[in-house]
Amino acid sequence: MILVIKNDITPEQFDHIINKIRELGFTPHISRGVKKTIIGLIGEQAEKYKEIFEAMEGVEHISEIEKPFKLASREFKEENTVVKVNEEVEIGGKKIVVIAGPCAVESREQIFTIAKLVKEYGAHLLRGGAFKPRTSPYTFQGLGKEALEYLKEVKRTLNIGVVSEVMNVQQVEMLVEYVDVLQIGARNVQNFDLLKEVGKVKTPVLLKRGMATTIKEWLMSAEYIMSQGNYNVILCERGIRTFEDSTRFTLDLNAIPVVKSLSHLPVIVDPSHGIGIRNFVPIMAKAAVVAGADGLIIEVHHKPEEAMSDGPQSIYPSQFNQLMIELRKIVDVIGREI
Amino acid sequence: MILVIKNDITPEQFDHIINKIRELGFTPHISRGVKKTIIGLIGEQAEKYKEIFEAMEGVEHISEIEKPFKLASREFKEENTVVKVNEEVEIGGKKIVVIAGPCAVESREQIFTIAKLVKEYGAHLLRGGAFKPRTSPYTFQGLGKEALEYLKEVKRTLNIGVVSEVMNVQQVEMLVEYVDVLQIGARNVQNFDLLKEVGKVKTPVLLKRGMATTIKEWLMSAEYIMSQGNYNVILCERGIRTFEDSTRFTLDLNAIPVVKSLSHLPVIVDPSHGIGIRNFVPIMAKAAVVAGADGLIIEVHHKPEEAMSDGPQSIYPSQFNQLMIELRKIVDVIGREI
Amino acid sequence: MILVIKNDITPEQFDHIINKIRELGFTPHISRGVKKTIIGLIGEQAEKYKEIFEAMEGVEHISEIEKPFKLASREFKEENTVVKVNEEVEIGGKKIVVIAGPCAVESREQIFTIAKLVKEYGAHLLRGGAFKPRTSPYTFQGLGKEALEYLKEVKRTLNIGVVSEVMNVQQVEMLVEYVDVLQIGARNVQNFDLLKEVGKVKTPVLLKRGMATTIKEWLMSAEYIMSQGNYNVILCERGIRTFEDSTRFTLDLNAIPVVKSLSHLPVIVDPSHGIGIRNFVPIMAKAAVVAGADGLIIEVHHKPEEAMSDGPQSIYPSQFNQLMIELRKIVDVIGREI
Amino acid sequence: MILVIKNDITPEQFDHIINKIRELGFTPHISRGVKKTIIGLIGEQAEKYKEIFEAMEGVEHISEIEKPFKLASREFKEENTVVKVNEEVEIGGKKIVVIAGPCAVESREQIFTIAKLVKEYGAHLLRGGAFKPRTSPYTFQGLGKEALEYLKEVKRTLNIGVVSEVMNVQQVEMLVEYVDVLQIGARNVQNFDLLKEVGKVKTPVLLKRGMATTIKEWLMSAEYIMSQGNYNVILCERGIRTFEDSTRFTLDLNAIPVVKSLSHLPVIVDPSHGIGIRNFVPIMAKAAVVAGADGLIIEVHHKPEEAMSDGPQSIYPSQFNQLMIELRKIVDVIGREI
Repeated sequence: MILVIKNDITPEQFDHIINKIRELGFTPHISRGVKKTIIGLIGEQAEKYKEIFEAMEGVEHISEIEKPFKLASREFKEENTVVKVNEEVEIGGKKIVVIAGPCAVESREQIFTIAKLVKEYGAHLLRGGAFKPRTSPYTFQGLGKEALEYLKEVKRTLNIGVVSEVMNVQQVEMLVEYVDVLQIGARNVQNFDLLKEVGKVKTPVLLKRGMATTIKEWLMSAEYIMSQGNYNVILCERGIRTFEDSTRFTLDLNAIPVVKSLSHLPVIVDPSHGIGIRNFVPIMAKAAVVAGADGLIIEVHHKPEEAMSDGPQSIYPSQFNQLMIELRKIVDVIGREI
Repeated sequence: MILVIKNDITPEQFDHIINKIRELGFTPHISRGVKKTIIGLIGEQAEKYKEIFEAMEGVEHISEIEKPFKLASREFKEENTVVKVNEEVEIGGKKIVVIAGPCAVESREQIFTIAKLVKEYGAHLLRGGAFKPRTSPYTFQGLGKEALEYLKEVKRTLNIGVVSEVMNVQQVEMLVEYVDVLQIGARNVQNFDLLKEVGKVKTPVLLKRGMATTIKEWLMSAEYIMSQGNYNVILCERGIRTFEDSTRFTLDLNAIPVVKSLSHLPVIVDPSHGIGIRNFVPIMAKAAVVAGADGLIIEVHHKPEEAMSDGPQSIYPSQFNQLMIELRKIVDVIGREI
Repeated sequence: MILVIKNDITPEQFDHIINKIRELGFTPHISRGVKKTIIGLIGEQAEKYKEIFEAMEGVEHISEIEKPFKLASREFKEENTVVKVNEEVEIGGKKIVVIAGPCAVESREQIFTIAKLVKEYGAHLLRGGAFKPRTSPYTFQGLGKEALEYLKEVKRTLNIGVVSEVMNVQQVEMLVEYVDVLQIGARNVQNFDLLKEVGKVKTPVLLKRGMATTIKEWLMSAEYIMSQGNYNVILCERGIRTFEDSTRFTLDLNAIPVVKSLSHLPVIVDPSHGIGIRNFVPIMAKAAVVAGADGLIIEVHHKPEEAMSDGPQSIYPSQFNQLMIELRKIVDVIGREI
Repeated sequence: MILVIKNDITPEQFDHIINKIRELGFTPHISRGVKKTIIGLIGEQAEKYKEIFEAMEGVEHISEIEKPFKLASREFKEENTVVKVNEEVEIGGKKIVVIAGPCAVESREQIFTIAKLVKEYGAHLLRGGAFKPRTSPYTFQGLGKEALEYLKEVKRTLNIGVVSEVMNVQQVEMLVEYVDVLQIGARNVQNFDLLKEVGKVKTPVLLKRGMATTIKEWLMSAEYIMSQGNYNVILCERGIRTFEDSTRFTLDLNAIPVVKSLSHLPVIVDPSHGIGIRNFVPIMAKAAVVAGADGLIIEVHHKPEEAMSDGPQSIYPSQFNQLMIELRKIVDVIGREI
């Protein structure tokens, strides 16, 4: 941590800062220039005291040197984390993992129809929401436990792992009985109590980036989960909010190489929310894989116009099939598998 | 709701749309131009079906006509809502209400010291966090129930109402026993289960805007609370996230007149988070009042450099005193009171 | 264009609107609902009068139906535009075009060294700035005409077309004598006089998207150029400004499929500015091609630490070579060439 | 400037950095921590070499210590700059200066009508565009020199100074003959050739902030003008582009205290573009003054529905009159004049 000192600091203010640094157990490294003085505090713990020094008179600006996340950092663990979902599926290895299915489970028939198709076309895991966070209180909020029972049946019958969203602390215990991956939605990325709760189980957690969450904050949210003991965290880029309004969100593929340099955790991409327009989902899915994604999560619906949510961005099963065919060729030339 | 039809729609696709409109009980209003055809669906319920039509082939674009929120809308209730907090304090009337206090309750002595000062200088309510949502799992998370006990004691001793944040569904029942206003933080603005839960009690709710929440989404979050029966919602603008990095957030004072035209709910402003720099908090507080805010929530700390959170943006009690003196002059010339 | 009428409009205000519509030569299509009334004006010219109606009392909101750009639109010209740069190079066809070179021409030796390498590795065109728009007036502003002379010599000697930026109206005449493609930088995307001026020549124009330019505004800027007669416009996505600060800009690859659906113009991508971090430029370049880009423009420097600008995002010639090798494999599986 | 060194730097890379620092004439200040090493380069010139070090292997991150602008900085000149516009008007002193008038000069009659009204109600300067930067090439582009002649006549007849926009380098010479203040529009904030050109005259320059320009970049643009000798720069905040779409832009009033702490230049506010909705312009104008603005620039039109541009955000003369009445009361209580 570097403190940049104001030109007009008084000697008393300066001594006060130096004393505080010593009191906290650090050695101040002072560098005086003609116009500016800076003080360095180096050490793992220094960043924790940032606000103390920011709040002091005479400090113009503070630069952080250490990253605020530890368990999630590449420095803590150099090799890539591979999250084992079930006997067949691992995320973060050579193989690209594709999660597909409807936004929400709407009926037994609907989830079976879609699950069979996506499995046939090559999906490795099934997605399907039981509890839906919706902007309006007047729209479909998910079938709840009924949906979970359908997912359980699909899972047993078709032998496919399932991913479903957990919306609050109380649901965690129940959901781990039904699902293979717990999804934390973008709107809950800084619901810290929920993060801690899913940190206490062993089920893998798919952590979506929030729409205004910086990469560092997102990794701090992963750190919350890991700090409770659950290291099975899969990050999911799903688009950020920008001024551009011709797409639902702005898919930030830059985030993939950046996260991979900062962290050992696997990163997957959700092109459905990331662009929000059905016919453009497949091309963005392919771009995401080439940008380094370890997997994809894609909304597929056989009758999107009857979907209770996200119809406009759900692709048809035939589009999903075509995408998988094309992905098989692409992974080949970038040294991965699918 | 207006459907703009693609130029290359087939007659079958067009009929399919028309039939769907009739099936849902609406009369389609068709207007054909030389190059474009549009279909109008008018009625309160039409917006609910937006995604169905967006998901249909042949639809280029949909414009919403009706607002998606009802109970929160100015059309539903024309006169301003005045939220009664306790016998002395109402928010949304002629009187500007000032909520002041530390970011977090840190000790019995700390909260008493600050509470006495802010009350003396004219604050109407005391703020103080018991449960703190922090970006890092390794920083102070609040004193929890101990803090609530201190707040209770302060409230009884100094006769000042208290505002404190609720972070999850399970805390609601406990917090309503201690506080006069339940605060929903910016990161929980779309934690829909929490919104519903605070909608079931009668305690006023201070709903902060999220850092990437549009004004319409924010009003939809208020609608969630109101849809459960709790109409005592106070909106709080606290800065949005933009590209500008010389301030913590970008305080969006534009939001005040816009919200007041769309909704009857009171709006207050949090300049502490909105700019994030101690010495600029008072001037932004004054600007907010002139822009039409019904109140302010301000972080005050007697020793900000020892504050466990938000020290850099907490003003000194003497600054708060000076601000109140200046606000008294300002409210006078804009036809309000304090 | 759709006018949504306020609930509390007076009959006089309503008549005033209807009369204005008739006066402008349109037939108003009125649809009355229980709570809302809308008026449709359909026709190519209607959007031109948008501000007139927005400024009228009684109008709540206006939705545009027609797109504001014409010559640039896919509706005006269905097939893709292929811009012919010289005898060997066309942009917008099956072949991906790669433009490579230093940010700025720094010396005769520097530009020759880099040009030889990038040509050898497969670049189709050479980039190199003669006039540099720099944020600070105290940094290197380009060699100017001297640089153009070097580019001319490189072009003749190595038989490679050159791309260079034009910063103002007076330079256009001179630059067309030297370059094969005129580049308009992101900061000049709405320098309308400059757009008009390059619209009067026949030289192809590479039009960078501005850092806060929506896709529609960007196409309007292309329209400016085309409206003067120069249809040889190549669009270039180069990252937009968002809240994310761990990359220089946020590369918006969503823009590629969106632009291609709205316009017939070719789109290339600048991953160097789009992510701004040397080691991540190649992976984003590959992702861009898979997302549908018709070409790439990449900063390459043999000694980036001595570069007078953009050193941190310039890749080494060896990295460029490796990228070209990998691109050759990728274009194969996506049905393109390089 | 502080270099944060990568953990895995080789001794050769480290020596290379140290040698480069010495070669440039600086003394490296090295501070080694357990996990991180940092190197300080302190001095006015250090920031100039930032890109050189960023481009070097082994450097993880660079923090700037010195500000990149000099002439514009508060450190260069402590007291506020007061820009003298004419015998009666100065901007940056105790008196708030109000500039009012139409977006564009549309006819002799129009500009005379509006000028008389705004002058009568208390405006100090008249605004009126002769050359208009418009997003679409098919809309009104201004009356050009004809407009300037009208402005000259108004100026002489009504004795009021005029402000008008300069769009390109060639216009500067002509405009200085007609106007008292040259306006640089938001889209030209980084049109560096234009900035240099207006830097060569003595006429005051009103420099609008760009819609995606950070405060530091904006001050760098001011520095461009000042570096050529023209110190009469007036900064103008006019709203930035964010995700919020219910207003035209997001007026960033935070920018006022921040700019005033960094720079000695006067800052005025344009609430017309900043919110873009007629009925909310006056309240934002008042908030801006309380936030510390030295002046306002406001669009006023007697028949906004017939305005050729910006009708929806132009206030009626009666609204302007009312605003001036209210401002007179407000300036009184904040220690300013009008």
